[in-house]
Parts: sequence; structure tokens; C-alpha cells
Amino acid sequence: MDSATTRPPTPDQTRDTSTCPLSQAVRERACAAAGPFPASHRVYLQGSRDDLRVALREIVQSPTQTPNGPRENPPLRVYDTGGPYTDPEAELDPARGIHPIRAPWIADRGTDACTQLDYARAGVTTPEMEYIALREGLSAEFVRDEVARGRAVIPANHCHPEAEPMAIGRHLKVKVNANIGNSPLSSGIPEELEKLIHAVRWGADTVMDLSTGEAIHETRAWLLRNSPVPIGTVPIYQALEKAGRPEDLTWEVFRDTLIEQAEQGVDYFTIHAGVRHGHVDLARGRLTGIVSRGGSIMAKWCSHHQAESFLYERFDEICEILARYDITVSLGDGLRPGSVADASDEAQLAELRTLGELTERAWARGVQVIIEGPGHIPMNQIEENMRLQSEACLEAPFYTLGPIVTDIAPGYDHITSAIGAAQIGWHGTAMLCYVTPKEHLGLPNADDVRTGIVTYKAAAHAADVARGHPGARDRDDALSRARYEFRWEDQFNLSLDPERARAYHDETLPKASHKEAAFCSMCGPRHCAMAISQEL
Amino acid sequence: MDSATTRPPTPDQTRDTSTCPLSQAVRERACAAAGPFPASHRVYLQGSRDDLRVALREIVQSPTQTPNGPRENPPLRVYDTGGPYTDPEAELDPARGIHPIRAPWIADRGTDACTQLDYARAGVTTPEMEYIALREGLSAEFVRDEVARGRAVIPANHCHPEAEPMAIGRHLKVKVNANIGNSPLSSGIPEELEKLIHAVRWGADTVMDLSTGEAIHETRAWLLRNSPVPIGTVPIYQALEKAGRPEDLTWEVFRDTLIEQAEQGVDYFTIHAGVRHGHVDLARGRLTGIVSRGGSIMAKWCSHHQAESFLYERFDEICEILARYDITVSLGDGLRPGSVADASDEAQLAELRTLGELTERAWARGVQVIIEGPGHIPMNQIEENMRLQSEACLEAPFYTLGPIVTDIAPGYDHITSAIGAAQIGWHGTAMLCYVTPKEHLGLPNADDVRTGIVTYKAAAHAADVARGHPGARDRDDALSRARYEFRWEDQFNLSLDPERARAYHDETLPKASHKEAAFCSMCGPRHCAMAISQEL
Repeated sequence: MDSATTRPPTPDQTRDTSTCPLSQAVRERACAAAGPFPASHRVYLQGSRDDLRVALREIVQSPTQTPNGPRENPPLRVYDTGGPYTDPEAELDPARGIHPIRAPWIADRGTDACTQLDYARAGVTTPEMEYIALREGLSAEFVRDEVARGRAVIPANHCHPEAEPMAIGRHLKVKVNANIGNSPLSSGIPEELEKLIHAVRWGADTVMDLSTGEAIHETRAWLLRNSPVPIGTVPIYQALEKAGRPEDLTWEVFRDTLIEQAEQGVDYFTIHAGVRHGHVDLARGRLTGIVSRGGSIMAKWCSHHQAESFLYERFDEICEILARYDITVSLGDGLRPGSVADASDEAQLAELRTLGELTERAWARGVQVIIEGPGHIPMNQIEENMRLQSEACLEAPFYTLGPIVTDIAPGYDHITSAIGAAQIGWHGTAMLCYVTPKEHLGLPNADDVRTGIVTYKAAAHAADVARGHPGARDRDDALSRARYEFRWEDQFNLSLDPERARAYHDETLPKASHKEAAFCSMCGPRHCAMAISQEL
Repeated sequence: MDSATTRPPTPDQTRDTSTCPLSQAVRERACAAAGPFPASHRVYLQGSRDDLRVALREIVQSPTQTPNGPRENPPLRVYDTGGPYTDPEAELDPARGIHPIRAPWIADRGTDACTQLDYARAGVTTPEMEYIALREGLSAEFVRDEVARGRAVIPANHCHPEAEPMAIGRHLKVKVNANIGNSPLSSGIPEELEKLIHAVRWGADTVMDLSTGEAIHETRAWLLRNSPVPIGTVPIYQALEKAGRPEDLTWEVFRDTLIEQAEQGVDYFTIHAGVRHGHVDLARGRLTGIVSRGGSIMAKWCSHHQAESFLYERFDEICEILARYDITVSLGDGLRPGSVADASDEAQLAELRTLGELTERAWARGVQVIIEGPGHIPMNQIEENMRLQSEACLEAPFYTLGPIVTDIAPGYDHITSAIGAAQIGWHGTAMLCYVTPKEHLGLPNADDVRTGIVTYKAAAHAADVARGHPGARDRDDALSRARYEFRWEDQFNLSLDPERARAYHDETLPKASHKEAAFCSMCGPRHCAMAISQEL
């Protein structure tokens, strides 16, 4: 395998990109969505190979004015998921795709490439592990050992060389996933690429393409070739589009869909193999039945055929396909509760035990595993849900949707779920699937993606701080120091969303001079608490 | 004391309200801000007196369509803080003020009126206690006993008869406070009344007027005469406006301000009597010093005069004034941490121990007490902060600002703080002071007030659900059932913010027929999870 063959065809390589209307539309959207952050530039950490350079974002601060003259404040380095989209130097041409950073590493491994789990178990530190270690400020051995133990995963399909390596694990920084994708009712390829760019620019660590509408294959090609983060999918969605009805799904259609997506480079697959035939009855007494799309499809299939799920029956074959590409399996929680009333019920827990069994089967075949989790859970059950998952699934990384802690706030479910997400992240969840303000109501647009991601970055970071993750508080402390010293520009620049922070400040104090003022419009110019405190 | 004298002058009683431009401007704003919720009407629970009628909001649901015909769904009753502003029958004339519901009860008690704490200790169940019991679905004896024990308070100044009785306590529903008020840089009386109406309409249980700008006295008069919820203030703010500089403050100016505000009807006063002279040094090594405005003012006073705080020294005299009006003291946390770095430090804890001492001194004089709390606290310290407060302050109700769990998200601090607020509410905090998206950046406008309140109502409700508060989950279950049955209108109407939920749904599916569709734009018309689940 050489580096050329590790890279699937770019979306538009056969066309003249300068005249194709789709390519032009995509490029316009992409350029509008991308852009560097203020006072920020890229710095690179050099690894052991020339081509192993880890990009971080460095935020420059202004000096503090003291009676003895200005005192410099050090720049702050932050983890950056934005790839070329936050790089002021980058030229974007989505029809060609972004730079395939991993291509030479994949090529070096040749045709015998195995999974990161296999390498880790064999004591081999891959370039991906080294990259992640530099990115997170850890030792490469630690990353390797966590992967070997199954406590961390590196979603990295051999056919997605554009993804910058990252890992998901309970002893790493808490990660955030953004769901995008069209539906039969809305959105096209330019809009989906715009959402991808918004997502990674604001901090998404992985992106799931949940498209169910038109041009599923082509949309995914555009996303993969332009994504600097791992891409996940739920292959049963596309299989269903091919089959027509849930009951018409077959193993063959599903298998072919897996391979089709694997060849394109998808890094992790959600597979609802834990929804067994015998579980369907457990969900009958629920207030809100089955709310997972994949779960309901498989429950329908099992009920119709009165047969065991082919995903469960064929799970070893699925793992063999996944191992060939090093695709991580994300064991879907098809029976997750869709309301706090249904939380932690027997349907959910029976499926969780099955996921534990499947975890061991996947590990036996060298496949990396993460476990999806609820959903809707009241706060008093969150820690227990984390404990049950850890125990049942042998510490395989937990990847939760929220959880939403109350059902009464549609329109604000990014918040009701961030409350649960921050807590479960603190207790050990490795990745949080964002929820946007549109949850339960409609498909998110690009601005909803931004709000959802920033909300979840705050929740994940709060979890890192609560866990005492090394260095997690550095950004808090730098921002708080800037706030206390009335370095307004620094406060904005150090924040998760500098544009919004500045815009809110501008609403009442728009002048440039206000960005150096020792007050804000909350207290007004007289008797600001922090100004008085400094006088003391 | 007759009912006439229990009611202070209305803002505009000496003017011709039909021509006064201010009255007209206020009235226009008020009418625009008020309004009933969809599918909702008022129902009244009749108490033991003819004039004791507790208003609740009843939300009507549509029937479920079943194969056997429609099945009725019962209406849901919810706690309503909106007073006349959610009442379709009400006619608003802010210059005259709203109906003084408590006036006859206050008149009946005559000139010997003592505090709700005194009555409770004497085994007397007041109309206020009965009102609260009906409102919360509890027994009047339980409310009385909680008040007697100091574990709940009823902020109800004899001079604020317009307030509908409510209580704050760890065994009651978690309450939410909204801060409003002008600053020297912005806002006038019409805008502040608009914020008050937004706050109570969306669910604020109390409102604090933190005005520091112009016309403080007059603004407060308009707010009090038109507020159906208790009003709190920080009297040192107005005292400082009179004195000019912190060091020029005197006990006499402060005392006169207390009496001025007491006569107007303020229901609770934040008093930073816990910032003792000896505490000031404890805050010197902090990252963000003193961020409480009241705290910094008192620290400055103590440092300048090298003397003990007059609020601490004169605390018994303060309590005597408060007892005369039955004003609740909210012991301010002037040394609350302003960053996660400063959380739970010795300055904070030394002040907390002083607040415990002051709690006993206030109780000895029949004054009801609540305790203000942080601020910025990482998640792993939240439960411990609750425990320390309970222990130090003998279970006096805790009233916290957030806490914010990470400092890195200005512009999203309603969310970073709702994460902390929900948790500390679950662990026993009785009232949550909202934080708006503008926190740290500027004064909130009316829309920020709405976002802040709805966010905090969700957090408080999540806490009630996690605590297992009786009946708390009823609204969740009704809404989830409506969601599962695709009763979209019911889902909107049962939500905390029906307008926003509907608007978000309208963005992708605006037609009336979509409000009965068995799908949304997330899955599209084919293969909706809930639709498939129902087929099973």
C-alpha cells in the first residue's frame, strides 16, 4: 500500500473545480465559515519524525500595566481541533480536500497494517500515539498503555489520512462530538461542510455524519476529505435508505454498506448490536418507548422476523471488517431512555450488559471499542450510570449524549444536557456528544452547531477541572487574571467564544477606550468591586 | 395599622396618570412585556379565608388519538410567579400598582405584627404560611415548622402587600432569583419594570433590584408597587451613592437607608456583615481579590479606618430594624471567590463561619435569615460547599450565585453557572440566583433576563427532580408523553418557554399540519424512531 492508495478519491478529482457549481458553492461556504481566532497563531510541537508536527493554538496576551511599568504575560497554548480552518496560512479547496497528514505513516506500515489496539498490545508506539501524547501533554507510553488496556481509543481509519490523531479515554481530556448531517427535509452538501467547519473551528473533537437525506455517499465523501477530526457514522441509516423498510434490511445490505463507508474512510461506526430480540419486550412499558433511531429500526426488524438481531449474530464478522481498516466500534445504546421517567430501567441495563459482552468480543479481534450512553437521566442517577457502565464494559470509554436532566425545556436542551454532561464527564465519561438548542425540535443550522459545541466545550472543560486533569485550570487562571486586571481584549481572546464575548461587551460599551477601562456596565464607572479590591 | 397605612404611596398617586409621560412610557412597556401563556388559564385554590386564593396556571392538553377514538389528557397545574402579568383578565396600570393581596391580612394583625419567624415559633399558622402550603402542595404545619426551625423563610415586608407569599427553604421547591437594576451607564424606569415583568412572567420567584444609577428611590418604588414577588436589595449600594466614597460611609447613612427602603417595602436585604476587618488580609493572595461589590466596599471601609465593620458591630441594631418590618436578612458573601482558583479558600470559609454566628444573632431577634454563597466553584467542591454552609449556618437556607464551574466561557456563563446551580440545588440549596449570558460583560437586557430565568428554572427543576421532590416529575412526564405521541402543540405548551420551542420547530416545519406530524426535521418523515417504536 503506498500513500496514494491509502487516500480514497477526492470528491471532485475528476472535474474541473474551477467551473463546477457545487465545488464553487462548497468553497464559498467553507471560506466564509473558516478563519483564525483573534490574537492567535499556530505553533508546532516537533515529534520524532520530520512529518510529525502537532499544531497547537497560541493565544498572545498583552502586558499588565503596573506602577513599575508593563509586566509581560506569557502566551497560552490551547488544544486546537480546527486543522486548516483556524490556520491563517491555509488555502482552502474542498474539492481537493485537506492535507493527508497521516498518509506517510500509513504507507510506512505497508499492507500488514493492523489496529492501534494491536500495536499497543505489542508494545509498539505508533506515530498516532506520539502525536496524541504531544497534543495532550502526556507521555507516549501512557497513551499506548491506555489504548492497550482498552481504556482509550484512537479512531483512525487507514483510509482517512486527513484526520489529525486524537484519542478518547477516561484519563485524557474529555472530548466533544458534534452531530451533523442532512435529513430528507433539509440541507445540502455546502451546508453540511459549513457545519463541519463550524464544529471543528469551535472545538469538536470528532464529528458524526448522521445524514439520512439525499446524496448520502457523496456528502460523506466531501466531509471525510475535508475533516481534520475523526468522522463517525451510523451505517444502518444508509443501509435503511437502500432497503426501504426496516424489515427489508439484510445482513448483506448492511455488510456492503459497512465496506462502502469503510473504504471512504469513516473512523468509527455506531452499531446497535446490543438491541437483542429479547430486549424489545423490556421497552414496552416505557413512557417514551425506543427513541434511538438505530434502536427502533433493529427492534422493528427483530419483531417482524421474530429473530435475533443480525448485528448481534454477525458481530464477529462485523469486527473482522472493522479490524481491516482500524475502524473503532461505538456500541450504540438503542434502548437509551428518552425521558427521565425511563432512566436506568431494565431495558437500558439489559442492553448495557450485552454491550459489555460485545466489548470483549471486539477486543478479542483487535477492534477498539467505545460505548454509547444515555440520553435522559436525572442528576441523582448520573454517577451510578457511570459506575454501571465502567463495570459492565470493563472501562471501555463511555460516550454519552448529554444526559439531559429534565424534559421540560425544549429549546434549551443544550443547557439541560450540558448540566448532565459536565457531571458525567467529571465522573469518568470520555466523550460528550453535544446537544444543540434545536434538539427534539428540528435539524440544527450552523449557528446552532456553534452554540452546541461551545456549550459542550465548557462542560467538558469543567469536567477536566473537576477531575484535576493536569494543566486544565491554566486557561481559567489566565482568563480570570486578565479579567481582574481589566485586560478586556485578553479576556475575550482567552475565552471559548471570543466573538460572542466581545459582541456582548460592545452592546453597552462599544468604544475602543472601554476595552481598557477599569469597569464594565454592570457596576458602572464608579465603585467597581474589582477596581476597589485592587486599591486595597 | 389599617390596610391603607400598610401600603406606601404608589409611584404616581399625586399625578394625573393619563398625561404623565413617564407613566405612559412605563405602561406601554409593561403591557408589551406581559401576556398569558398559550393554552393556559388561571385556577385558584381556595384557602380558609375568602381572600386567600392561590393562583396556579393550568395548561390544557389535547386528546391522544387512539384506534378507539380520542383519549383525554388531564390538564397540568404549574406554580405561577407571574401574578397579573400572566393573567389574561388583568388590566395593568403601573402608576397605581397591582392588587395588594396581603393588605387585609396585615391589617388584621394590627400594630403588634411580628415576624413570620415569631409567629411560627409561637405555633401560629399565618395566612402567608397557608398560602405557601397550598401553592407548594404541602401542609401548612410543615411550612410553619420549617420556618420556626429557620430552615425556611418567608420574605414578606409588612409594607409590600402586593407580593404573593412564597418561601425559600431546602425542603421546598428550589427557587430562582433574578437580578435587575440600572447602572450609571444604562437603563431607566420603563426598562427596569420591563425586566421585572419578564423575570416574573418567565418564573422568577424573587427579584433583586441592584440599581446603582439614577433615581434609585423612585425606580424601587415603581418596582415594589408592581411586583407580585418579594423584592430584595443591597442597601449599601444606595448608601454609597449618598456617601460618595466607601470610606465616607457611616452607620447613620446606612441606617437611614435601611429605614427608607424598609418603608418602601423591600422584602429582603443583602447585608455584608460577614466581611470583618480581620478578613481583609485573607483575600490578599487571591487571583481575583474581592469581586463582591458590597464586600469590596466594606473591605475598603475597614482598611481605611483600620476598624471593625460597622455592619458587624451594629448587627443587632440592624436586626431590630428588620424585625419591625419582617424583612429577611440575606447575609452577603462579600468574600466569595471570583474564580475557580480562589474557591473554598480561607477568606471564603472565615466569612462563612462569621455568617453562622450572625445567623444565631438574627434568629435571637426574630429575624429570618438566608445565606448567600459562591460564585465560582469547580464541580468537585460543590457538595462540600453545601455541607460546610449547612453546618456553619445551622441549615439556614442557602442562596447561591451559580456557582460557575469554569471561568473560560464569558458569553455562556448562564450555562457554566447553571451546571453548578443544578448540582448545588440538588444537594440542598434553597434558592439559585440566576446568571445571564451578559455576566462579566455588561448589564442584561430584557431578553437576557428571559434566557437567564428559563435556564435557571430548568436547573432548579432538575434539582427538584433529582431530590425526588413530590410531584416534581409530573411536568416532565406530561411533556415526554406529549412528545412521544407527537402532540407538538402540547409539547410546546408544557415547556418552560413555549414561544421559543415553537419558533425553533417553525424554522424547519412551519406549517400547521406539521404540528400534528408523526416526525420532525431531525429524522424526516421516514423512519422516525418514535414512530417506529409506536408501531411495535
